[in-house]
Amino acid sequence: MAEKNLEMLFYDHLRDIYYAERQILKALPKMARAAQGADCKAAFEKHKEQTETHVERLQQVFDIIGKRAQGKTCEAIHGIITEGEEIAEEYKGSPALDAGLISAAQAVEHYEIAQYGTLKTWATQLGLKEAVSLLDATLQEEGATDKALTKLAVAAANPKAKAA
Amino acid sequence: MAEKNLEMLFYDHLRDIYYAERQILKALPKMARAAQGADCKAAFEKHKEQTETHVERLQQVFDIIGKRAQGKTCEAIHGIITEGEEIAEEYKGSPALDAGLISAAQAVEHYEIAQYGTLKTWATQLGLKEAVSLLDATLQEEGATDKALTKLAVAAANPKAKAA
Repeated sequence: MAEKNLEMLFYDHLRDIYYAERQILKALPKMARAAQGADCKAAFEKHKEQTETHVERLQQVFDIIGKRAQGKTCEAIHGIITEGEEIAEEYKGSPALDAGLISAAQAVEHYEIAQYGTLKTWATQLGLKEAVSLLDATLQEEGATDKALTKLAVAAANPKAKAA
Repeated sequence: MAEKNLEMLFYDHLRDIYYAERQILKALPKMARAAQGADCKAAFEKHKEQTETHVERLQQVFDIIGKRAQGKTCEAIHGIITEGEEIAEEYKGSPALDAGLISAAQAVEHYEIAQYGTLKTWATQLGLKEAVSLLDATLQEEGATDKALTKLAVAAANPKAKAA
């Protein structure tokens, strides 16, 4: 069982979120194109830029533990992104579209917050100080993005979406 | 487009989380059985009891909007639960098992936090005051459960998991 310890769990999760971040990187430009409001488009574009930095930080964490940066299929992010794509299709032309897209983006954020929070806890326990800093930097940004999306969500769910 | 407004988006998401909660209800006893530590088992059992209340509250929200309580397949929760099942299998007998199970439970929590946060925002906008109270009660409990799981995660990722 030597290989199935906390180091291995950390590595497995790192591969999971690395795969997830790259799927998110592909999904965000589609969401930005689908969005109706300028604020919503801008939020998704900003999130894409941040995600590029998050991918780079993950590559640095792989370096720290001496492993090759390699993704591992993450069914959770596939499910979350699929739900966003369904909203984009089903609510195309509806005044509630952006509200729906923002909800999908917040589901993405919360998946990331959960994973980075876990990875930070484990990196702390494993004494990987530099990795803790990198993971925490991303965790703080994901939290800030989620708060910004909550503000947008309130604006997007305004009476014009309601009155369609 | 009359049917694709915010009311419909709210109903769609209500069906999504109703399905998700019932999947979580089935998954939690398995996670409690798989867990090694008494604290971890107890946390999953408590979460199951809370989830029963959350399902009942959702049924009340369906009543408020005059719709039948009916789930809608949620790919996201399937993906998240599948990842938890994989950890339970791959880390069986490992001292890192509970750390892995808790991480899966936190991914579930964050999915719920995202969905209930969204539903609460929309219910507020739609003037569904009673629904706002019900959704907020669950949202607060999910947040508290996530915090409790974070404490457990730190304990579970202790040196015995590391030293396997």
